[in-house]
Amino acid sequence: MKYFKDIPGVKYEGPQSDNPFAFKYYNPDEIIDGKPLKDHLRFAVAYWHTFCATGADPFGQPTIVRPWDRFSNPMDNAKARVEAAFEFFEKLNVPFFCFHDRDIAPEGENLRETNKNLDEIVSMIKEYLKTSKTKVLWGTANLFSHPRYVHGAATSCNADVFAYAAAQVKKALEVTKELGGENYVFWGGREGYETLLNTDMELELDNLARFLRMAVDYAKEIGFDGQFLIEPKPKEPTKHQYDFDAAHVYGFLKKYDLDKYFKLNIEVNHATLAGHDFHHELRFARINNMLGSIDANMGDLLLGWDTDQFPTDVRLTTLAMYEVIKMGGFDKGGLNFDAKVRRGSFELEDLVIGHIAGMDAFAKGFKIAYKLVKNGVFDKFIDERYKSYKEGIGAKIVSGEANFKMLEEYALSLDKIENKSGKQELLEMILNKYMFTE
Amino acid sequence: MKYFKDIPGVKYEGPQSDNPFAFKYYNPDEIIDGKPLKDHLRFAVAYWHTFCATGADPFGQPTIVRPWDRFSNPMDNAKARVEAAFEFFEKLNVPFFCFHDRDIAPEGENLRETNKNLDEIVSMIKEYLKTSKTKVLWGTANLFSHPRYVHGAATSCNADVFAYAAAQVKKALEVTKELGGENYVFWGGREGYETLLNTDMELELDNLARFLRMAVDYAKEIGFDGQFLIEPKPKEPTKHQYDFDAAHVYGFLKKYDLDKYFKLNIEVNHATLAGHDFHHELRFARINNMLGSIDANMGDLLLGWDTDQFPTDVRLTTLAMYEVIKMGGFDKGGLNFDAKVRRGSFELEDLVIGHIAGMDAFAKGFKIAYKLVKNGVFDKFIDERYKSYKEGIGAKIVSGEANFKMLEEYALSLDKIENKSGKQELLEMILNKYMFTE
Amino acid sequence: MKYFKDIPGVKYEGPQSDNPFAFKYYNPDEIIDGKPLKDHLRFAVAYWHTFCATGADPFGQPTIVRPWDRFSNPMDNAKARVEAAFEFFEKLNVPFFCFHDRDIAPEGENLRETNKNLDEIVSMIKEYLKTSKTKVLWGTANLFSHPRYVHGAATSCNADVFAYAAAQVKKALEVTKELGGENYVFWGGREGYETLLNTDMELELDNLARFLRMAVDYAKEIGFDGQFLIEPKPKEPTKHQYDFDAAHVYGFLKKYDLDKYFKLNIEVNHATLAGHDFHHELRFARINNMLGSIDANMGDLLLGWDTDQFPTDVRLTTLAMYEVIKMGGFDKGGLNFDAKVRRGSFELEDLVIGHIAGMDAFAKGFKIAYKLVKNGVFDKFIDERYKSYKEGIGAKIVSGEANFKMLEEYALSLDKIENKSGKQELLEMILNKYMFTE
Amino acid sequence: MKYFKDIPGVKYEGPQSDNPFAFKYYNPDEIIDGKPLKDHLRFAVAYWHTFCATGADPFGQPTIVRPWDRFSNPMDNAKARVEAAFEFFEKLNVPFFCFHDRDIAPEGENLRETNKNLDEIVSMIKEYLKTSKTKVLWGTANLFSHPRYVHGAATSCNADVFAYAAAQVKKALEVTKELGGENYVFWGGREGYETLLNTDMELELDNLARFLRMAVDYAKEIGFDGQFLIEPKPKEPTKHQYDFDAAHVYGFLKKYDLDKYFKLNIEVNHATLAGHDFHHELRFARINNMLGSIDANMGDLLLGWDTDQFPTDVRLTTLAMYEVIKMGGFDKGGLNFDAKVRRGSFELEDLVIGHIAGMDAFAKGFKIAYKLVKNGVFDKFIDERYKSYKEGIGAKIVSGEANFKMLEEYALSLDKIENKSGKQELLEMILNKYMFTE
Repeated sequence: MKYFKDIPGVKYEGPQSDNPFAFKYYNPDEIIDGKPLKDHLRFAVAYWHTFCATGADPFGQPTIVRPWDRFSNPMDNAKARVEAAFEFFEKLNVPFFCFHDRDIAPEGENLRETNKNLDEIVSMIKEYLKTSKTKVLWGTANLFSHPRYVHGAATSCNADVFAYAAAQVKKALEVTKELGGENYVFWGGREGYETLLNTDMELELDNLARFLRMAVDYAKEIGFDGQFLIEPKPKEPTKHQYDFDAAHVYGFLKKYDLDKYFKLNIEVNHATLAGHDFHHELRFARINNMLGSIDANMGDLLLGWDTDQFPTDVRLTTLAMYEVIKMGGFDKGGLNFDAKVRRGSFELEDLVIGHIAGMDAFAKGFKIAYKLVKNGVFDKFIDERYKSYKEGIGAKIVSGEANFKMLEEYALSLDKIENKSGKQELLEMILNKYMFTE
Repeated sequence: MKYFKDIPGVKYEGPQSDNPFAFKYYNPDEIIDGKPLKDHLRFAVAYWHTFCATGADPFGQPTIVRPWDRFSNPMDNAKARVEAAFEFFEKLNVPFFCFHDRDIAPEGENLRETNKNLDEIVSMIKEYLKTSKTKVLWGTANLFSHPRYVHGAATSCNADVFAYAAAQVKKALEVTKELGGENYVFWGGREGYETLLNTDMELELDNLARFLRMAVDYAKEIGFDGQFLIEPKPKEPTKHQYDFDAAHVYGFLKKYDLDKYFKLNIEVNHATLAGHDFHHELRFARINNMLGSIDANMGDLLLGWDTDQFPTDVRLTTLAMYEVIKMGGFDKGGLNFDAKVRRGSFELEDLVIGHIAGMDAFAKGFKIAYKLVKNGVFDKFIDERYKSYKEGIGAKIVSGEANFKMLEEYALSLDKIENKSGKQELLEMILNKYMFTE
Repeated sequence: MKYFKDIPGVKYEGPQSDNPFAFKYYNPDEIIDGKPLKDHLRFAVAYWHTFCATGADPFGQPTIVRPWDRFSNPMDNAKARVEAAFEFFEKLNVPFFCFHDRDIAPEGENLRETNKNLDEIVSMIKEYLKTSKTKVLWGTANLFSHPRYVHGAATSCNADVFAYAAAQVKKALEVTKELGGENYVFWGGREGYETLLNTDMELELDNLARFLRMAVDYAKEIGFDGQFLIEPKPKEPTKHQYDFDAAHVYGFLKKYDLDKYFKLNIEVNHATLAGHDFHHELRFARINNMLGSIDANMGDLLLGWDTDQFPTDVRLTTLAMYEVIKMGGFDKGGLNFDAKVRRGSFELEDLVIGHIAGMDAFAKGFKIAYKLVKNGVFDKFIDERYKSYKEGIGAKIVSGEANFKMLEEYALSLDKIENKSGKQELLEMILNKYMFTE
Repeated sequence: MKYFKDIPGVKYEGPQSDNPFAFKYYNPDEIIDGKPLKDHLRFAVAYWHTFCATGADPFGQPTIVRPWDRFSNPMDNAKARVEAAFEFFEKLNVPFFCFHDRDIAPEGENLRETNKNLDEIVSMIKEYLKTSKTKVLWGTANLFSHPRYVHGAATSCNADVFAYAAAQVKKALEVTKELGGENYVFWGGREGYETLLNTDMELELDNLARFLRMAVDYAKEIGFDGQFLIEPKPKEPTKHQYDFDAAHVYGFLKKYDLDKYFKLNIEVNHATLAGHDFHHELRFARINNMLGSIDANMGDLLLGWDTDQFPTDVRLTTLAMYEVIKMGGFDKGGLNFDAKVRRGSFELEDLVIGHIAGMDAFAKGFKIAYKLVKNGVFDKFIDERYKSYKEGIGAKIVSGEANFKMLEEYALSLDKIENKSGKQELLEMILNKYMFTE
């Protein structure tokens, strides 16, 4: 069966195209700075949203019924889903996908059976990977959907749950390795709390660190050399998620001496739920050498939950790609569309259109950002702005020579301090020019 | 001149009292757990809000004109303010106060003159301290009001500003020491940014760390043995303040190896602006051994700025004191009322009433919290909830013996995982019983 | 089968009781102001949360499995649910319940079969009502869960959906009448929009008004004399719900001349999602003579979605009951617990405990509010504060005699305007005294 | 004296221009749809932000010192400000400006003297207007800055304050008429409340209506035929502003039969503070025939206060102009830049640059919106989407023929309801194409 047979393969047709099934800005093979665009952007499809989402929400039943979910046996559906996925990857010409263990194969009666299900699907995917141009960007384990994780996984009050989660991640690591995944992601899931009245926060955080260390050890043991990533998120599903934002994760990793093993997978909508611009989270991660990968989506800042919309805000994609270019491009990470079609967009073609919209928005953003970087637009301004730290007293401050006494002496001798305008309006005007003028 | 002569000294009269100028719950000398209540709570008056605030806001001129601001010469006002302050402290029978350098003495033509002003007022305060029962909880420097700090102080793009700020903190440290201050607070002020388009975040954070290290060095040099505190705040005045919340500060201190020198001064309204319960921030600080002191106020969660209201929410004060009691009480810190009367509460007596309302709310909260701790209300529940980590596989997880293989083996052997209800509703019901039933 | 056989009937035992299954503050038969407390408070159980909720959330599967959901046939479950419900009502001694059509009976193959299902369960409930002390506070129709309502019901872009919704409300009105419901509630459901790019807001609002008018007409036709209520909510499930808050609904009803037929059902958590204190929404409704009923729950102001927690904040319940008392008590409305146990509170007894906690919080709040009203605590202050409108120029303003010229003349003659403190801190202190001192 | 002598007159140079003092998209005389662009956009400069703002904020002193504020006498500064203003208007070639009474002339010792000050400056401005190409878009009265308005103006608890405000608006109306203002705006100022504990909301709202009616009457009396506008805002400066959003104002005007006299002045940042997209507020106003004018700025959705930034978000300006074009363009209203340079942008040229950035963003947005409207991009989609209301049962619903019985009959006969995808992703993709492809 062909699931997307009515939808043509998506090709680059350029900005003037009115074809909804064509890329207007994303030309995968266009060479920029010596590398094709597809290698700069490293797009990935998220298996869960794209192949598993049903449109159910807290107030309503599923609106989406996919043709690959037509069987009564979950394993039959899982297999059909793999077929659909690789057909979709090819249509979209997308280089990567990402998955949770439970996205690709259903739970069985017990862990042994569940692992057997997983093995069967993994074999099938492996077969597909042999000929597909699409690879695995990262794998992860779903430690939040099943009711056993009601009080968390590594931070559950129940040691049996911790053990079960450990077993699940062990398997997910093996599977990710087997499928050639370049990264393994820890997403907080239900690692957090609902109320401190019943919570031993200290033990829970210690246990989370123990869990991560075991993962590091096991990866070494099996020779998995992918990058470990943690994905910050501040709330939802729990009231307070421990991996609140990039800085929380950074401090946590430092505390437990785990920082050298992990980078961050920054998600747009998680950044804004934490009260930060996406740009801020990326910058924070970059300057701490922890920017690993990106979950590309878009939230609605007037809504207080994770809407996971396809990203179409080009200012946002521009500033994101700016940070990625400034760090020298992605290493193992990429742009994973952790985005879902709206509940009302329940037709099959909406899946394709959503991805095209997102890929075009990031491609456009990349091109703008590339010019901004190449022309040194902001760099020159910033160099000039901070130049007082390159000589005189400023240089002594930076080098560590200065101390309070020396600085007091200097300050007492100062006649008048001259500041200069920060010129935010000018810089925003210039950014607009780069965005709207070719 | 007596400023508060129409207001009687505030005494404890008990819960039935209708006297607005009496404590209903705060009996300073009541012994609880072997210590008078005043030593448990260590209340402080904030010099800036209480003696300097004018009721001006972004949309309006001052509504508050204090009798001590009646002179044309700023130094005369400063002296009158000291007189008023110590009269107020005595009326309220409050053990501490806190101040910024610029609250107590005005800027002069240049730094030398400013320091001279400061010295003069410090001498005067020192004289008062000899006989007053009120002491200095902490001092700090105002590095945000003057236009020179428009782009920050330690994180300014202008090295001259860094130097000036250093000189100012040097002096503030000396003054705090001279006045016997038990702590010195760094409040972010304008350490943050408005837009990343013009900001070198990495250099700014490095410079902030350099600044703090110089402060640590200078404190050692002059033998100041007070506790250094950093006060987190997420936004306002800048779009993004670097000391966003407790976890941000923690990570920052870890990065620069400064964590052993600093604790945190947690403010209620700053916690909620960062998207956290106050309780969360206190717990985070406590388990990381960083809970130093508290800025006691209350925000309005429907408003997006720091309203600094007097704290009257007893649930909030109960949970705060719960954390303080669990850490063994304050060491050098205390409860500083970083709170201001509403713009419409411009009468002198409102100052007194606001403080009484806050002190009573914290005293009531302390008493409730003390019973909760003594009766082990939540501790017993939590011990039971996490008991699986005290034996068997759980104990192995905690001790570090467990690894993924062992846990997988265990998980494969598990028949069914049994979780128990987290009982949030029951715990909230019990908390209400403790709050509303003597 | 007895579902709650392990749980004793809930009785009033007074504030000292440690029994989690006893009321501490709610004594249903206590006479206050000539009326038993139960008639002041008119508590209702929400059928949907209490008997249908599963603990599923956007990130996880159900955690709650009720013993009445043990059958494979949905109608068998529906019947068992009725049995459980009336057993629960009796245990809790609660005077009312509320329901949606689809809570009590499942959808069938088509509307005819669905209505047949509904009729069968309605007959069964009617039988129970003959002997039960519990009655129907209000009924409503679920116009949001089924995928047909993906784009709204009365505001759907699809006229067939409008028609279907009309048929459903017609039936729900008949059923509510048959069961003696005192009110009928319209809750926005999916009446709102996701994006204006695809929305004809004007037609949708006109259609919503048409729908409500048809309901008014049909109620007249069948002689249903219950009160119609609209429940405002600002967001969730749609990005923008048309019934955003009380003032939005008020303006809408005015525009379409529907205001005399509808009052409001104000929900705590919806008020705060709209950026208002619950108190504000109640006051707005009261002064516009539109306060009909209350959906009693509590949100988390740090989270951006409807958490529907059981209300335990006594300050909130006090101010709510203050408004209810000031309007002369409920007429046909009451306090419906639109509240659900937390996902982690999956045990049967949590249902009972949640309701007790909520009922006690409102009973306590009522008692405090009653004293505040009886003693005229705020009324006296407010009378004094606004007294300038009772004489002189103020009286002329109020009577309509004044005009700009007269007022200018008066203002030109004014020497100095004297304002008085608004005394917010004092009033909050007094509120605390009433809350914490018997 | 020439204030802006170093800044060249701002001309249109086209998208490729790198000149910060040139328009890239705003060509005032470009004819679109038979009208020059300047008449479509009707830009206005806000006197208060542009000529009076100092950069003071709740945490800091002024950073901005303008050369026209160099005198010791406030009237001398006021006159210099007028000179600077008209020089600025000419530089920018802007067709309108807006002002508060107190922006243009300072308060005197008493109302009589204040009015005299105002008259003197008004005469001066009138003289300038004779030769200037810039006219008055609207005037208003500042009823919030002076401490007399601490508890509101028309909603003050003090009748003297009401009278004073009335006198002030009377004068402001006269002045606006004299200067040829096309509109008069009521901005809520401090019309709202801080706490309901001390507030008679009902009397306050009644008084606000009385005040507005007097204004309507007085305008008739003096023959002022400008448009009255109300500007909604939800919070700041008061906790709850009565003119919360467009729908609140609409309901208020309906209640007091004032709706035929007032339209709305919608501000971007006020819309988002109320939890709405700007687009939503414009649409609501448009379909209720109340869209009068726009306060053009931009907020920061991660900050909870009114930041009044210059608008540079082209998606926002596009959707705004879309609504304006759909209503047939502005009648008397326009686009007033209620925007201020950042506190750190304290140089004179930043004022010019900020305005250029905003004017270009709106010009670009207008051009995109014009194509969207002309091509019927969204209209066609929406027509198709709602076509079921144009025939059959849908047409009967719209015409009023349908009732619940008829609809039930229809619904019972329906086989299956077919919904179509709402295609949000597609529409967002198309919007991007129109934005980024000429």
